[in-house]
Amino acid sequence: MRIITLLTDFGLEDGYVAAMKGVIAGIAPEAHLVDVTHLVPPQDVAFGRFRLLTAAAFFPPGTVHLAVVDPGVGTTRRAVAIRTASGSTFVGPDNGLLGGALEVDAPLAAVELTAPRFWRTPSPSATFHGRDVFAPVAAHLARGVSLESLGSPIHPEGLVELELSVWRIVPGGAEGAVQTVDRFGNLISSVPGTALAGRPVWSASIAGQTVAGHRTYGDVAPGEPLALVGSHGFVEIAVRGGDARKTLGARTGDRVEIRWT
Amino acid sequence: MRIITLLTDFGLEDGYVAAMKGVIAGIAPEAHLVDVTHLVPPQDVAFGRFRLLTAAAFFPPGTVHLAVVDPGVGTTRRAVAIRTASGSTFVGPDNGLLGGALEVDAPLAAVELTAPRFWRTPSPSATFHGRDVFAPVAAHLARGVSLESLGSPIHPEGLVELELSVWRIVPGGAEGAVQTVDRFGNLISSVPGTALAGRPVWSASIAGQTVAGHRTYGDVAPGEPLALVGSHGFVEIAVRGGDARKTLGARTGDRVEIRWT
Amino acid sequence: MRIITLLTDFGLEDGYVAAMKGVIAGIAPEAHLVDVTHLVPPQDVAFGRFRLLTAAAFFPPGTVHLAVVDPGVGTTRRAVAIRTASGSTFVGPDNGLLGGALEVDAPLAAVELTAPRFWRTPSPSATFHGRDVFAPVAAHLARGVSLESLGSPIHPEGLVELELSVWRIVPGGAEGAVQTVDRFGNLISSVPGTALAGRPVWSASIAGQTVAGHRTYGDVAPGEPLALVGSHGFVEIAVRGGDARKTLGARTGDRVEIRWT
Repeated sequence: MRIITLLTDFGLEDGYVAAMKGVIAGIAPEAHLVDVTHLVPPQDVAFGRFRLLTAAAFFPPGTVHLAVVDPGVGTTRRAVAIRTASGSTFVGPDNGLLGGALEVDAPLAAVELTAPRFWRTPSPSATFHGRDVFAPVAAHLARGVSLESLGSPIHPEGLVELELSVWRIVPGGAEGAVQTVDRFGNLISSVPGTALAGRPVWSASIAGQTVAGHRTYGDVAPGEPLALVGSHGFVEIAVRGGDARKTLGARTGDRVEIRWT
Repeated sequence: MRIITLLTDFGLEDGYVAAMKGVIAGIAPEAHLVDVTHLVPPQDVAFGRFRLLTAAAFFPPGTVHLAVVDPGVGTTRRAVAIRTASGSTFVGPDNGLLGGALEVDAPLAAVELTAPRFWRTPSPSATFHGRDVFAPVAAHLARGVSLESLGSPIHPEGLVELELSVWRIVPGGAEGAVQTVDRFGNLISSVPGTALAGRPVWSASIAGQTVAGHRTYGDVAPGEPLALVGSHGFVEIAVRGGDARKTLGARTGDRVEIRWT
Repeated sequence: MRIITLLTDFGLEDGYVAAMKGVIAGIAPEAHLVDVTHLVPPQDVAFGRFRLLTAAAFFPPGTVHLAVVDPGVGTTRRAVAIRTASGSTFVGPDNGLLGGALEVDAPLAAVELTAPRFWRTPSPSATFHGRDVFAPVAAHLARGVSLESLGSPIHPEGLVELELSVWRIVPGGAEGAVQTVDRFGNLISSVPGTALAGRPVWSASIAGQTVAGHRTYGDVAPGEPLALVGSHGFVEIAVRGGDARKTLGARTGDRVEIRWT
């Protein structure tokens, strides 16, 4: 029996996430359920996209990742399921939410969810496909139902992507932007740490300030800013024991310039 | 082995919920634990009642629902367990918390929890019956202990109910109130969607404003208010992509008037 | 298969806790995972220490407790695993986080985690030992790997402790401090309830106010302050149905004086 991860913007104070888990338990009672997060700000697809990519890669092959941040629910946006190179499956709306994880774990096959016999009801709630479509589909996948039986095949290249995570190499460095901020106030850029391979001395500029690149928080004094490659694999600007967002006055979308010497 | 759901007002920052889960694990190690929510505002029985009713109905028969929002702990309020028509069981204080779920899944039998051999200790903490009484009782139920052995039988009709969810049909429509507000700021009224059966054209008035009834968020432009039947089955006033509580200046308890034509 | 509890300061909005759970699932897929809390304020070791001690004692023998509040990650602080009298195991940084739980359940043996074959990678992220060192070690322990194989033995008496929980008996009473405040605003002192054995009449003074000792909230009127022995075993100052922190204007670190007659 497989693991099903859950990521939504439903929050933790209502009963909506539990309703999804109840539906799953009725179909796949032995599935192990693991929350990624339910605190995605309402309808913030980009926020959810980053949290999913930081977690999904660490689950074993065969995991079913269920992600629902779905501002288009009730419109014509597609509901999809995608099988990847690792043998895992992603289930959710086709709005870019799944895209970051699929950069790490390439999609091999995808379907639009058009087979109501795998839904909770053939007439799903117009506002809660998480409970009525996505959760039961994820549960059936965890039980071994084939991707192909869930609906009509679509081309993985045709999946919607967000205009996010843009970065490029420039003379003497790289440029990108703050793609998200984590709970500790760390500013996570779109520049991958791999861009720094073989370049031990570097710095990052953001919001008019330049901070030196280091290997770890312990390399600077408490309260001092630093740049480093975070555990998620991207260049991150942080303050040891502090909050870089507040200290540097920076935020999501701010330009980040990397210089190496 | 059964599922045990948990709903409390203990929050997520302290160790109290985990203490309950530890007690359960010691008695019923194979039980699957699913959180409904622990973010009920302290002692807000009505808030907990609504979240339980939106989640419980989606769990499979045989689930044990453990709910503890218990301002009367340490007083003479009764601790109860209730078996319902679906074969599920509810465990908690007899203060109305369980009442909404029991409107959906009718109670067949109930006991007052008076058998200390199923408690963690015969001298439970005066302030934490969740850990010392309710959690071990739920765990014993999940292992197959009979409801009847847990205490003295009581009449389900005598269970405490809240004066909540009042609504009525009036000439040309229905009247109720905002019974709760969810995380997205959606105003959830006490009027059930079934009252609208066969009435495709309707509107809802609240806080001096009237909004048209629709089937789904996608039927209006972003930022526009609408009324619809929510996934929980009640008439709800929402703003597409926004927060109806803020936009309409409304709150729990406000009168809601439905008019159909 | 064993239970693994998790306590961190990673919060619930990022994917970091889920990444740890994914790593665990890849090693010990049958382990039952129970969250203690992930809402420890960033790097607040004392806060985490109290939450762990209130939860750990209620789990069955053999539980693996994984706790990561780790301001020293990337420095020379030790990573440790500790086996206790109950047969449980604690895994985390050696910075005092585990100390409160170890006062209840005495350490029998300890190792510094120096065997990279039990890590996710021999080159762990400089900032995320939770995912790369502590989580895989906890998973291997849950599968039955021996403590001794995880690294070099160290003396349990040499583990780091916090200067916390100081209290003492004085003529006619006891003195301590507010060691933490819970979600309800209850002020939890460092004075254990056992100090009151055989002393039925007592009072507590804090922030210039004196409140009478009682057995339970129900002993005073709503809105009234009282002192009692909380479910965690310490003397606590509370307000029935209210928030003692706000009502009394007190906070963590404030002196608490107990007087008995």
